[in-house]
Amino acid sequence: MATIHNLDLQQEMARVAEAIDGQFDRLLTVPDDARAELYETMRHAVIGGGKRLRPLLVMTTARLFNVDDRCCLRAAAAVEAMHVYSLIHDDLPCMDDDDTRRGKPTAHKAFGEAQAVLAGDALQTLAFELLSDERTHTDPFVRAEMVACLAKAAGASGMVGGQMMDIVAETTSFDLQTVTRLQQLKTGALISASVEIGAILGRVAIEGRKGLRGYAHDLGLAFQIADDIMDVEGNEELAGKALQKDKAAGKQTFLTLMGLERAREQAQILVDQAKSHLKAYGAEADLLRAIAEYTVQRNH
Amino acid sequence: MATIHNLDLQQEMARVAEAIDGQFDRLLTVPDDARAELYETMRHAVIGGGKRLRPLLVMTTARLFNVDDRCCLRAAAAVEAMHVYSLIHDDLPCMDDDDTRRGKPTAHKAFGEAQAVLAGDALQTLAFELLSDERTHTDPFVRAEMVACLAKAAGASGMVGGQMMDIVAETTSFDLQTVTRLQQLKTGALISASVEIGAILGRVAIEGRKGLRGYAHDLGLAFQIADDIMDVEGNEELAGKALQKDKAAGKQTFLTLMGLERAREQAQILVDQAKSHLKAYGAEADLLRAIAEYTVQRNH
Repeated sequence: MATIHNLDLQQEMARVAEAIDGQFDRLLTVPDDARAELYETMRHAVIGGGKRLRPLLVMTTARLFNVDDRCCLRAAAAVEAMHVYSLIHDDLPCMDDDDTRRGKPTAHKAFGEAQAVLAGDALQTLAFELLSDERTHTDPFVRAEMVACLAKAAGASGMVGGQMMDIVAETTSFDLQTVTRLQQLKTGALISASVEIGAILGRVAIEGRKGLRGYAHDLGLAFQIADDIMDVEGNEELAGKALQKDKAAGKQTFLTLMGLERAREQAQILVDQAKSHLKAYGAEADLLRAIAEYTVQRNH
Repeated sequence: MATIHNLDLQQEMARVAEAIDGQFDRLLTVPDDARAELYETMRHAVIGGGKRLRPLLVMTTARLFNVDDRCCLRAAAAVEAMHVYSLIHDDLPCMDDDDTRRGKPTAHKAFGEAQAVLAGDALQTLAFELLSDERTHTDPFVRAEMVACLAKAAGASGMVGGQMMDIVAETTSFDLQTVTRLQQLKTGALISASVEIGAILGRVAIEGRKGLRGYAHDLGLAFQIADDIMDVEGNEELAGKALQKDKAAGKQTFLTLMGLERAREQAQILVDQAKSHLKAYGAEADLLRAIAEYTVQRNH
Protein backbone atom coordinates (compact mmCIF):
# COMPACT_ATOMS: atom_id res chain seq x y z
CA MET A 1 0.00 0.00 0.00
CA ALA A 2 2.69 2.48 1.06
CA THR A 3 4.53 1.98 -2.23
CA ILE A 4 1.41 2.69 -4.24
CA HIS A 5 0.80 5.85 -2.23
CA ASN A 6 4.32 7.08 -2.83
CA LEU A 7 4.08 6.47 -6.54
CA ASP A 8 0.73 8.27 -6.72
CA LEU A 9 2.10 11.09 -4.64
CA GLN A 10 5.17 11.55 -6.82
CA GLN A 11 3.00 11.72 -9.93
CA GLU A 12 0.58 14.10 -8.29
CA MET A 13 3.35 16.36 -7.01
CA ALA A 14 4.83 16.55 -10.50
CA ARG A 15 1.39 17.27 -11.99
CA VAL A 16 0.63 20.04 -9.45
CA ALA A 17 4.09 21.58 -9.86
CA GLU A 18 3.63 21.75 -13.62
CA ALA A 19 0.10 23.12 -13.35
CA ILE A 20 1.18 25.81 -10.86
CA ASP A 21 4.06 26.88 -13.09
CA GLY A 22 1.66 27.13 -16.03
CA GLN A 23 -0.83 29.12 -13.97
CA PHE A 24 1.79 31.68 -12.91
CA ASP A 25 3.15 31.85 -16.43
CA ARG A 26 -0.32 32.84 -17.66
CA LEU A 27 -0.98 35.23 -14.76
CA LEU A 28 2.33 37.04 -14.97
CA THR A 29 2.82 37.90 -18.62
CA VAL A 30 5.61 40.48 -18.66
CA PRO A 31 4.12 43.81 -19.78
CA ASP A 32 5.83 45.93 -22.42
CA ASP A 33 6.33 48.91 -20.12
CA ALA A 34 8.39 50.12 -17.16
CA ARG A 35 6.80 47.50 -14.90
CA ALA A 36 8.57 44.69 -16.79
CA GLU A 37 11.26 44.15 -14.14
CA LEU A 38 8.63 43.78 -11.41
CA TYR A 39 6.97 40.96 -13.32
CA GLU A 40 10.34 39.37 -14.09
CA THR A 41 11.20 39.37 -10.40
CA MET A 42 7.84 37.84 -9.53
CA ARG A 43 8.28 35.16 -12.20
CA HIS A 44 11.83 34.39 -11.05
CA ALA A 45 10.59 33.73 -7.52
CA VAL A 46 7.32 31.99 -8.25
CA ILE A 47 7.93 29.84 -11.33
CA GLY A 48 10.07 26.69 -11.09
CA GLY A 49 11.25 24.89 -8.01
CA GLY A 50 9.75 24.35 -4.61
CA LYS A 51 7.86 21.33 -3.39
CA ARG A 52 4.50 23.08 -3.96
CA LEU A 53 3.24 21.42 -0.78
CA ARG A 54 0.60 24.09 -0.13
CA PRO A 55 -0.96 23.98 -3.63
CA LEU A 56 -0.89 20.18 -3.36
CA LEU A 57 -2.83 20.36 -0.09
CA VAL A 58 -5.41 22.77 -1.53
CA MET A 59 -5.98 20.58 -4.58
CA THR A 60 -5.90 17.23 -2.81
CA THR A 61 -8.33 18.41 -0.14
CA ALA A 62 -10.68 20.02 -2.66
CA ARG A 63 -10.68 16.86 -4.74
CA LEU A 64 -12.19 14.96 -1.77
CA PHE A 65 -15.29 17.02 -2.51
CA ASN A 66 -15.12 16.84 -6.30
CA VAL A 67 -14.29 20.49 -6.85
CA ASP A 68 -13.57 21.53 -10.43
CA ASP A 69 -9.83 21.30 -11.07
CA ARG A 70 -9.49 24.75 -12.64
CA CYS A 71 -11.02 26.47 -9.58
CA CYS A 72 -8.67 24.52 -7.33
CA LEU A 73 -5.67 25.51 -9.37
CA ARG A 74 -6.38 29.24 -9.06
CA ALA A 75 -6.93 28.95 -5.31
CA ALA A 76 -3.81 26.79 -5.02
CA ALA A 77 -1.81 29.43 -6.90
CA ALA A 78 -3.11 32.06 -4.46
CA VAL A 79 -1.76 30.15 -1.46
CA GLU A 80 1.56 29.55 -3.23
CA ALA A 81 1.83 33.26 -4.13
CA MET A 82 1.38 34.05 -0.44
CA HIS A 83 4.05 31.52 0.52
CA VAL A 84 6.55 32.76 -2.06
CA TYR A 85 6.05 36.41 -1.07
CA SER A 86 6.98 35.43 2.49
CA LEU A 87 10.11 33.65 1.24
CA ILE A 88 11.21 36.68 -0.81
CA HIS A 89 10.86 39.04 2.16
CA ASP A 90 12.36 36.49 4.58
CA ASP A 91 15.44 36.25 2.37
CA LEU A 92 16.06 40.03 2.31
CA PRO A 93 19.35 41.36 3.73
CA CYS A 94 17.50 42.95 6.66
CA MET A 95 15.83 39.61 7.45
CA ASP A 96 17.65 36.27 6.98
CA ASP A 97 19.99 37.62 4.30
CA ASP A 98 19.98 34.54 2.10
CA ASP A 99 21.61 34.22 -1.31
CA THR A 100 19.98 31.04 -2.57
CA ARG A 101 16.39 29.82 -2.67
CA ARG A 102 14.95 26.86 -4.54
CA GLY A 103 18.37 26.34 -6.10
CA LYS A 104 18.41 29.82 -7.65
CA PRO A 105 19.71 33.21 -6.51
CA THR A 106 17.20 34.86 -4.18
CA ALA A 107 15.05 37.60 -5.72
CA HIS A 108 17.10 40.47 -4.29
CA LYS A 109 20.34 38.83 -5.44
CA ALA A 110 19.00 38.45 -8.96
CA PHE A 111 17.09 41.75 -9.32
CA GLY A 112 17.93 44.07 -6.41
CA GLU A 113 16.39 44.77 -3.03
CA ALA A 114 13.75 47.29 -4.08
CA GLN A 115 12.51 44.93 -6.79
CA ALA A 116 12.39 42.06 -4.29
CA VAL A 117 10.38 44.09 -1.76
CA LEU A 118 7.90 45.10 -4.47
CA ALA A 119 7.67 41.62 -6.03
CA GLY A 120 6.84 40.19 -2.61
CA ASP A 121 4.26 42.90 -2.04
CA ALA A 122 2.62 42.28 -5.40
CA LEU A 123 2.55 38.51 -4.88
CA GLN A 124 0.68 38.97 -1.62
CA THR A 125 -1.83 41.18 -3.43
CA LEU A 126 -2.10 38.63 -6.24
CA ALA A 127 -3.12 35.98 -3.71
CA PHE A 128 -6.17 37.99 -2.70
CA GLU A 129 -6.90 39.06 -6.27
CA LEU A 130 -7.08 35.40 -7.25
CA LEU A 131 -9.28 34.32 -4.34
CA SER A 132 -11.76 37.16 -4.86
CA ASP A 133 -12.06 36.56 -8.60
CA GLU A 134 -15.29 35.09 -9.98
CA ARG A 135 -13.28 32.74 -12.16
CA THR A 136 -11.94 31.05 -9.03
CA HIS A 137 -15.41 30.37 -7.63
CA THR A 138 -18.84 31.54 -8.72
CA ASP A 139 -20.20 31.74 -5.15
CA PRO A 140 -19.23 35.07 -3.50
CA PHE A 141 -19.60 33.46 -0.07
CA VAL A 142 -16.88 30.95 -0.95
CA ARG A 143 -14.65 33.74 -2.30
CA ALA A 144 -15.08 35.95 0.76
CA GLU A 145 -14.49 33.03 3.11
CA MET A 146 -11.29 32.00 1.33
CA VAL A 147 -10.01 35.58 1.53
CA ALA A 148 -10.83 35.78 5.24
CA CYS A 149 -9.17 32.43 5.89
CA LEU A 150 -5.96 33.29 4.03
CA ALA A 151 -5.76 36.78 5.52
CA LYS A 152 -6.06 35.45 9.05
CA ALA A 153 -3.38 32.83 8.39
CA ALA A 154 -0.97 35.25 6.72
CA GLY A 155 -1.09 38.39 8.86
CA ALA A 156 0.06 39.55 12.28
CA SER A 157 -1.91 36.79 14.02
CA GLY A 158 -0.46 34.19 11.65
CA MET A 159 2.57 33.92 9.37
CA VAL A 160 3.94 37.45 9.77
CA GLY A 161 3.46 37.20 13.54
CA GLY A 162 5.58 34.02 13.42
CA GLN A 163 8.26 35.79 11.38
CA MET A 164 8.38 38.52 14.04
CA MET A 165 8.77 35.87 16.76
CA ASP A 166 11.57 34.35 14.69
CA ILE A 167 13.45 37.65 14.83
CA VAL A 168 12.99 37.83 18.59
CA ALA A 169 14.21 34.21 18.83
CA GLU A 170 17.68 35.37 17.81
CA THR A 171 18.11 37.27 21.06
CA THR A 172 15.74 35.41 23.41
CA SER A 173 15.88 31.81 24.53
CA PHE A 174 12.42 30.38 23.81
CA ASP A 175 11.09 27.25 25.52
CA LEU A 176 9.47 24.36 23.65
CA GLN A 177 5.98 25.81 24.05
CA THR A 178 7.02 29.15 22.55
CA VAL A 179 8.97 27.52 19.70
CA THR A 180 5.89 25.40 18.96
CA ARG A 181 3.72 28.52 18.83
CA LEU A 182 6.28 30.34 16.67
CA GLN A 183 6.27 27.52 14.15
CA GLN A 184 2.51 27.12 14.33
CA LEU A 185 2.22 30.77 13.26
CA LYS A 186 5.16 30.99 10.86
CA THR A 187 4.57 27.76 8.91
CA GLY A 188 1.60 25.94 10.39
CA ALA A 189 -0.98 28.66 9.80
CA LEU A 190 -0.50 28.69 6.02
CA ILE A 191 -0.42 24.89 5.82
CA SER A 192 -3.68 24.80 7.77
CA ALA A 193 -5.15 27.48 5.51
CA SER A 194 -4.27 25.35 2.45
CA VAL A 195 -6.36 22.45 3.75
CA GLU A 196 -9.10 24.81 4.95
CA ILE A 197 -9.34 26.51 1.56
CA GLY A 198 -9.69 23.09 -0.05
CA ALA A 199 -12.62 22.44 2.30
CA ILE A 200 -14.13 25.90 1.63
CA LEU A 201 -13.95 25.25 -2.11
CA GLY A 202 -15.78 21.98 -1.38
CA ARG A 203 -18.44 23.93 0.55
CA VAL A 204 -17.81 21.86 3.67
CA ALA A 205 -19.58 23.54 6.61
CA ILE A 206 -17.36 24.57 9.51
CA GLU A 207 -18.60 21.75 11.75
CA GLY A 208 -17.58 19.24 9.06
CA ARG A 209 -13.98 20.47 8.95
CA LYS A 210 -12.82 19.21 12.35
CA GLY A 211 -10.97 16.15 11.07
CA LEU A 212 -9.28 18.06 8.27
CA ARG A 213 -8.24 20.79 10.71
CA GLY A 214 -6.71 18.24 13.07
CA TYR A 215 -4.89 16.66 10.12
CA ALA A 216 -3.52 20.02 8.97
CA HIS A 217 -2.43 21.05 12.45
CA ASP A 218 -0.41 17.89 13.07
CA LEU A 219 0.94 17.85 9.53
CA GLY A 220 2.22 21.42 9.90
CA LEU A 221 4.06 20.62 13.10
CA ALA A 222 5.54 17.39 11.72
CA PHE A 223 6.67 19.32 8.64
CA GLN A 224 8.48 21.88 10.76
CA ILE A 225 10.21 19.32 12.98
CA ALA A 226 11.37 17.56 9.81
CA ASP A 227 12.59 20.92 8.51
CA ASP A 228 14.61 21.48 11.66
CA ILE A 229 16.14 18.02 11.31
CA MET A 230 17.03 18.73 7.70
CA ASP A 231 18.52 22.09 8.62
CA VAL A 232 21.14 20.10 10.57
CA GLU A 233 21.39 16.87 8.57
CA GLY A 234 20.31 17.89 5.11
CA ASN A 235 22.10 18.46 1.83
CA GLU A 236 22.23 22.10 0.71
CA GLU A 237 22.11 21.16 -2.95
CA LEU A 238 18.93 19.14 -2.57
CA ALA A 239 17.39 21.76 -0.27
CA GLY A 240 18.24 24.53 -2.74
CA LYS A 241 19.01 26.91 0.09
CA ALA A 242 21.59 27.53 2.81
CA LEU A 243 21.26 25.20 5.81
CA GLN A 244 22.43 25.27 9.43
CA LYS A 245 21.21 28.87 9.66
CA ASP A 246 19.37 28.35 12.94
CA LYS A 247 22.47 27.11 14.68
CA ALA A 248 24.49 30.04 13.34
CA ALA A 249 21.81 32.43 14.63
CA GLY A 250 21.84 30.69 18.01
CA LYS A 251 18.11 29.96 17.82
CA GLN A 252 16.26 27.36 19.82
CA THR A 253 14.58 24.84 17.53
CA PHE A 254 12.70 21.58 18.02
CA LEU A 255 16.06 19.91 17.61
CA THR A 256 18.00 21.89 20.21
CA LEU A 257 15.11 21.51 22.66
CA MET A 258 14.27 17.83 22.07
CA GLY A 259 17.42 16.28 20.67
CA LEU A 260 17.56 14.41 17.34
CA GLU A 261 16.09 11.12 18.43
CA ARG A 262 13.10 12.53 20.26
CA ALA A 263 12.46 14.98 17.44
CA ARG A 264 12.32 12.10 14.93
CA GLU A 265 9.95 10.16 17.15
CA GLN A 266 7.77 13.19 17.73
CA ALA A 267 7.52 13.89 13.99
CA GLN A 268 6.37 10.31 13.33
CA ILE A 269 3.85 10.47 16.20
CA LEU A 270 2.43 13.64 14.64
CA VAL A 271 2.20 12.01 11.21
CA ASP A 272 0.30 9.05 12.68
CA GLN A 273 -1.92 11.48 14.56
CA ALA A 274 -2.52 13.50 11.38
CA LYS A 275 -3.62 10.36 9.56
CA SER A 276 -5.89 9.31 12.43
CA HIS A 277 -7.82 12.57 11.96
CA LEU A 278 -8.82 11.32 8.50
CA LYS A 279 -10.59 8.20 9.75
CA ALA A 280 -13.94 9.48 8.46
CA TYR A 281 -12.55 9.25 4.91
CA GLY A 282 -11.80 6.13 2.92
CA ALA A 283 -9.37 5.52 0.07
CA GLU A 284 -10.23 8.91 -1.40
CA ALA A 285 -8.03 10.46 1.34
CA ASP A 286 -5.05 8.18 0.69
CA LEU A 287 -3.18 10.97 -1.04
CA LEU A 288 -3.56 13.20 2.03
CA ARG A 289 -2.23 10.31 4.13
CA ALA A 290 0.71 9.89 1.74
CA ILE A 291 1.44 13.63 1.99
CA ALA A 292 1.65 13.28 5.77
CA GLU A 293 4.20 10.45 5.46
CA TYR A 294 6.10 12.42 2.85
CA THR A 295 6.58 15.46 5.10
CA VAL A 296 8.90 13.49 7.38
CA GLN A 297 10.44 11.12 4.79
CA ARG A 298 11.46 13.75 2.22
CA ASN A 299 15.12 14.60 1.81
CA HIS A 300 14.58 18.26 0.90
CA MET B 1 -21.01 78.34 -0.41
CA ALA B 2 -17.28 77.61 -0.70
CA THR B 3 -16.72 78.77 2.87
CA ILE B 4 -19.43 76.48 4.17
CA HIS B 5 -17.91 73.56 2.25
CA ASN B 6 -14.49 74.21 3.71
CA LEU B 7 -15.83 74.39 7.24
CA ASP B 8 -17.81 71.16 6.77
CA LEU B 9 -14.80 69.53 5.22
CA GLN B 10 -12.47 70.49 8.05
CA GLN B 11 -14.90 69.11 10.59
CA GLU B 12 -15.39 65.94 8.60
CA MET B 13 -11.66 65.43 8.11
CA ALA B 14 -11.10 65.77 11.85
CA ARG B 15 -13.96 63.37 12.57
CA VAL B 16 -12.67 60.75 10.11
CA ALA B 17 -9.09 61.08 11.36
CA GLU B 18 -10.23 60.49 14.94
CA ALA B 19 -12.47 57.57 13.97
CA ILE B 20 -9.68 55.94 11.96
CA ASP B 21 -7.22 56.31 14.83
CA GLY B 22 -9.78 54.74 17.16
CA GLN B 23 -10.42 51.89 14.73
CA PHE B 24 -6.72 51.02 14.42
CA ASP B 25 -6.27 51.34 18.16
CA ARG B 26 -8.97 48.69 18.64
CA LEU B 27 -7.70 46.47 15.81
CA LEU B 28 -4.07 46.53 16.88
CA THR B 29 -4.04 45.81 20.59
CA VAL B 30 -0.43 44.95 21.40
CA PRO B 31 -0.28 41.25 22.37
CA ASP B 32 1.62 40.11 25.42
CA ASP B 33 4.03 37.91 23.48
CA ALA B 34 7.01 38.05 21.14
CA ARG B 35 4.88 39.68 18.44
CA ALA B 36 4.56 42.88 20.49
CA GLU B 37 7.13 44.83 18.48
CA LEU B 38 5.35 44.01 15.22
CA TYR B 39 2.14 45.53 16.53
CA GLU B 40 4.00 48.53 17.94
CA THR B 41 5.55 49.17 14.54
CA MET B 42 2.16 48.88 12.86
CA ARG B 43 0.62 51.27 15.40
CA HIS B 44 3.47 53.76 15.00
CA ALA B 45 2.90 53.92 11.26
CA VAL B 46 -0.87 53.77 11.14
CA ILE B 47 -2.11 55.76 14.14
CA GLY B 48 -1.83 59.54 14.21
CA GLY B 49 -1.03 61.88 11.36
CA GLY B 50 -1.81 61.83 7.69
CA LYS B 51 -4.63 63.56 5.89
CA ARG B 52 -6.71 60.36 5.80
CA LEU B 53 -7.87 61.35 2.33
CA ARG B 54 -8.63 57.78 1.28
CA PRO B 55 -10.78 56.89 4.31
CA LEU B 56 -12.52 60.23 3.85
CA LEU B 57 -13.34 59.31 0.25
CA VAL B 58 -14.64 55.86 1.21
CA MET B 59 -16.87 57.29 3.93
CA THR B 60 -18.07 60.34 2.02
CA THR B 61 -18.95 58.28 -1.05
CA ALA B 62 -20.69 55.57 0.99
CA ARG B 63 -22.71 58.20 2.82
CA LEU B 64 -24.25 59.26 -0.51
CA PHE B 65 -25.99 55.89 -0.37
CA ASN B 66 -26.79 55.90 3.35
CA VAL B 67 -24.41 53.12 4.29
CA ASP B 68 -24.08 52.36 7.99
CA ASP B 69 -21.20 54.38 9.44
CA ARG B 70 -19.55 51.47 11.24
CA CYS B 71 -19.31 49.39 8.02
CA CYS B 72 -17.81 52.39 6.24
CA LEU B 73 -15.24 52.89 8.95
CA ARG B 74 -13.94 49.34 8.72
CA ALA B 75 -13.70 49.53 4.92
CA ALA B 76 -12.08 52.96 5.21
CA ALA B 77 -9.51 51.56 7.63
CA ALA B 78 -8.77 48.77 5.13
CA VAL B 79 -7.91 51.28 2.41
CA GLU B 80 -5.81 53.33 4.82
CA ALA B 81 -3.95 50.20 5.99
CA MET B 82 -3.11 49.50 2.34
CA HIS B 83 -1.92 53.08 1.85
CA VAL B 84 0.23 53.08 4.99
CA TYR B 85 1.84 49.73 4.12
CA SER B 86 2.92 51.26 0.82
CA LEU B 87 4.40 54.28 2.63
CA ILE B 88 6.36 52.06 5.05
CA HIS B 89 7.89 50.04 2.21
CA ASP B 90 8.43 53.14 0.05
CA ASP B 91 10.41 54.74 2.88
CA LEU B 92 12.79 51.77 3.29
CA PRO B 93 16.53 52.32 2.73
CA CYS B 94 16.42 50.20 -0.45
CA MET B 95 13.54 52.32 -1.78
CA ASP B 96 13.30 56.09 -1.13
CA ASP B 97 15.35 55.91 2.08
CA ASP B 98 13.31 58.45 4.04
CA ASP B 99 13.77 59.33 7.71
CA THR B 100 10.54 61.20 8.36
CA ARG B 101 6.91 60.48 7.59
CA ARG B 102 3.81 62.20 8.92
CA GLY B 103 6.06 64.27 11.19
CA LYS B 104 7.49 61.17 12.90
CA PRO B 105 10.51 58.94 12.27
CA THR B 106 9.74 56.43 9.55
CA ALA B 107 8.94 52.88 10.73
CA HIS B 108 12.40 51.50 9.97
CA LYS B 109 14.06 54.46 11.72
CA ALA B 110 11.96 53.91 14.82
CA PHE B 111 11.91 50.08 14.94
CA GLY B 112 14.41 48.67 12.44
CA GLU B 113 14.22 47.49 8.86
CA ALA B 114 13.01 43.94 9.43
CA GLN B 115 10.20 45.21 11.64
CA ALA B 116 9.24 47.78 9.01
CA VAL B 117 9.11 45.19 6.23
CA LEU B 118 6.93 42.92 8.38
CA ALA B 119 4.68 45.72 9.64
CA GLY B 120 4.03 46.78 6.03
CA ASP B 121 3.34 43.17 5.07
CA ALA B 122 0.90 42.69 7.94
CA LEU B 123 -0.91 45.96 7.18
CA GLN B 124 -1.52 44.83 3.62
CA THR B 125 -2.94 41.56 4.95
CA LEU B 126 -5.05 43.47 7.49
CA ALA B 127 -6.67 45.42 4.65
CA PHE B 128 -8.01 42.21 3.10
CA GLU B 129 -8.89 40.72 6.48
CA LEU B 130 -11.07 43.75 7.16
CA LEU B 131 -12.79 43.76 3.78
CA SER B 132 -13.59 40.04 3.91
CA ASP B 133 -14.97 40.20 7.45
CA GLU B 134 -18.73 39.79 7.97
CA ARG B 135 -18.67 42.70 10.40
CA THR B 136 -17.69 45.01 7.55
CA HIS B 137 -20.62 43.97 5.38
CA THR B 138 -23.19 41.19 5.75
CA ASP B 139 -23.43 40.55 2.00
CA PRO B 140 -20.60 38.25 0.79
CA PHE B 141 -20.95 39.66 -2.72
CA VAL B 142 -20.10 43.12 -1.40
CA ARG B 143 -17.15 41.74 0.57
CA ALA B 144 -15.73 39.80 -2.38
CA GLU B 145 -16.17 42.76 -4.71
CA MET B 146 -14.38 45.12 -2.32
CA VAL B 147 -11.48 42.67 -2.02
CA ALA B 148 -11.25 42.31 -5.80
CA CYS B 149 -11.38 46.08 -6.25
CA LEU B 150 -8.67 46.81 -3.69
CA ALA B 151 -6.43 43.96 -4.89
CA LYS B 152 -6.57 45.18 -8.46
CA ALA B 153 -5.75 48.74 -7.38
CA ALA B 154 -2.90 47.73 -5.08
CA GLY B 155 -0.97 45.09 -7.00
CA ALA B 156 1.32 44.86 -10.00
CA SER B 157 -1.30 46.37 -12.30
CA GLY B 158 -1.90 49.21 -9.83
CA MET B 159 0.00 50.79 -6.95
CA VAL B 160 3.00 48.44 -6.82
CA GLY B 161 3.30 48.66 -10.61
CA GLY B 162 3.48 52.45 -10.20
CA GLN B 163 6.17 52.11 -7.54
CA MET B 164 8.18 49.98 -9.93
CA MET B 165 7.82 52.63 -12.64
CA ASP B 166 8.95 55.21 -10.11
CA ILE B 167 12.21 53.29 -9.61
CA VAL B 168 12.74 53.13 -13.36
CA ALA B 169 12.03 56.89 -13.54
CA GLU B 170 15.29 57.55 -11.71
CA THR B 171 17.30 56.30 -14.65
CA THR B 172 14.94 56.89 -17.58
CA SER B 173 13.50 60.15 -18.86
CA PHE B 174 9.74 59.64 -19.01
CA ASP B 175 7.46 61.78 -21.16
CA LEU B 176 4.24 63.38 -19.88
CA GLN B 177 2.13 60.41 -20.94
CA THR B 178 4.32 57.95 -19.06
CA VAL B 179 4.51 60.15 -15.95
CA THR B 180 0.72 60.40 -16.03
CA ARG B 181 0.41 56.63 -16.23
CA LEU B 182 2.98 56.19 -13.45
CA GLN B 183 1.00 58.46 -11.15
CA GLN B 184 -2.31 56.97 -12.20
CA LEU B 185 -0.99 53.60 -11.00
CA LYS B 186 1.06 54.71 -7.99
CA THR B 187 -1.47 57.10 -6.42
CA GLY B 188 -4.54 57.29 -8.63
CA ALA B 189 -5.49 53.63 -8.47
CA LEU B 190 -5.92 53.61 -4.68
CA ILE B 191 -7.78 56.94 -4.69
CA SER B 192 -10.11 55.51 -7.32
CA ALA B 193 -10.53 52.33 -5.29
CA SER B 194 -11.53 54.43 -2.25
CA VAL B 195 -14.43 55.98 -4.14
CA GLU B 196 -15.29 52.66 -5.79
CA ILE B 197 -15.41 50.85 -2.44
CA GLY B 198 -17.76 53.55 -1.16
CA ALA B 199 -20.02 52.80 -4.13
CA ILE B 200 -19.72 49.03 -3.62
CA LEU B 201 -20.73 49.45 0.03
CA GLY B 202 -23.71 51.43 -1.28
CA ARG B 203 -24.55 48.53 -3.63
CA VAL B 204 -24.36 50.82 -6.66
CA ALA B 205 -24.36 48.67 -9.81
CA ILE B 206 -21.33 49.05 -12.07
CA GLU B 207 -23.26 51.02 -14.71
CA GLY B 208 -24.25 53.54 -12.01
CA ARG B 209 -20.64 54.25 -11.01
CA LYS B 210 -19.54 56.11 -14.15
CA GLY B 211 -19.80 59.61 -12.67
CA LEU B 212 -18.03 58.62 -9.46
CA ARG B 213 -15.29 56.91 -11.44
CA GLY B 214 -14.73 60.02 -13.52
CA TYR B 215 -14.64 62.12 -10.38
CA ALA B 216 -12.07 59.82 -8.73
CA HIS B 217 -9.88 59.67 -11.82
CA ASP B 218 -9.62 63.44 -12.17
CA LEU B 219 -9.28 63.94 -8.43
CA GLY B 220 -6.36 61.51 -8.28
CA LEU B 221 -4.50 63.29 -11.03
CA ALA B 222 -5.16 66.75 -9.55
CA PHE B 223 -3.94 65.45 -6.20
CA GLN B 224 -0.68 64.25 -7.70
CA ILE B 225 -0.01 67.46 -9.62
CA ALA B 226 -0.60 69.38 -6.39
CA ASP B 227 1.80 66.98 -4.65
CA ASP B 228 4.48 67.67 -7.24
CA ILE B 229 3.97 71.43 -6.77
CA MET B 230 4.27 71.03 -3.00
CA ASP B 231 7.38 68.93 -3.37
CA VAL B 232 9.03 72.05 -4.79
CA GLU B 233 7.21 74.87 -3.01
CA GLY B 234 6.04 73.22 0.21
CA ASN B 235 7.08 73.42 3.83
CA GLU B 236 8.74 70.26 5.17
CA GLU B 237 7.36 70.79 8.65
CA LEU B 238 3.78 70.99 7.43
CA ALA B 239 4.29 68.10 5.02
CA GLY B 240 5.83 65.99 7.79
CA LYS B 241 8.28 64.46 5.32
CA ALA B 242 11.37 65.36 3.29
CA LEU B 243 10.60 67.40 0.16
CA GLN B 244 12.43 68.15 -3.11
CA LYS B 245 13.23 64.45 -3.38
CA ASP B 246 12.15 64.18 -7.01
CA LYS B 247 14.55 66.90 -8.08
CA ALA B 248 17.38 65.27 -6.16
CA ALA B 249 16.60 61.96 -7.86
CA GLY B 250 16.53 63.67 -11.26
CA LYS B 251 12.99 62.44 -11.94
CA GLN B 252 10.59 63.91 -14.46
CA THR B 253 7.42 65.12 -12.76
CA PHE B 254 4.33 67.05 -13.83
CA LEU B 255 6.24 70.15 -12.79
CA THR B 256 9.41 69.53 -14.76
CA LEU B 257 7.34 68.57 -17.79
CA MET B 258 4.68 71.32 -17.64
CA GLY B 259 6.25 74.12 -15.65
CA LEU B 260 4.70 75.61 -12.51
CA GLU B 261 2.07 77.83 -14.12
CA ARG B 262 0.68 75.22 -16.47
CA ALA B 263 0.72 72.59 -13.71
CA ARG B 264 -1.37 74.87 -11.48
CA GLU B 265 -3.84 75.52 -14.29
CA GLN B 266 -4.02 71.85 -15.15
CA ALA B 267 -4.72 70.88 -11.53
CA GLN B 268 -7.61 73.37 -11.36
CA ILE B 269 -9.01 72.18 -14.68
CA LEU B 270 -8.98 68.62 -13.30
CA VAL B 271 -10.75 69.73 -10.13
CA ASP B 272 -13.48 71.42 -12.14
CA GLN B 273 -13.73 68.35 -14.33
CA ALA B 274 -13.94 66.11 -11.25
CA LYS B 275 -16.81 68.17 -9.91
CA SER B 276 -18.59 68.14 -13.26
CA HIS B 277 -18.71 64.33 -13.04
CA LEU B 278 -20.93 64.70 -9.98
CA LYS B 279 -23.69 66.61 -11.77
CA ALA B 280 -26.16 63.78 -11.19
CA TYR B 281 -25.89 64.45 -7.45
CA GLY B 282 -27.26 67.40 -5.51
CA ALA B 283 -26.14 68.96 -2.25
CA GLU B 284 -25.51 65.48 -0.80
CA ALA B 285 -22.29 65.41 -2.87
CA ASP B 286 -21.06 68.83 -1.73
CA LEU B 287 -18.49 67.23 0.54
CA LEU B 288 -17.02 65.29 -2.41
CA ARG B 289 -16.87 68.59 -4.32
CA ALA B 290 -15.14 70.26 -1.38
CA ILE B 291 -12.62 67.38 -1.23
CA ALA B 292 -11.78 68.02 -4.88
CA GLU B 293 -11.11 71.71 -4.18
CA TYR B 294 -9.11 70.80 -1.10
CA THR B 295 -6.70 68.52 -3.00
CA VAL B 296 -5.23 71.52 -4.82
CA GLN B 297 -5.66 74.16 -2.09
CA ARG B 298 -4.08 72.24 0.79
CA ASN B 299 -0.67 73.30 2.05
CA HIS B 300 0.48 69.80 3.04
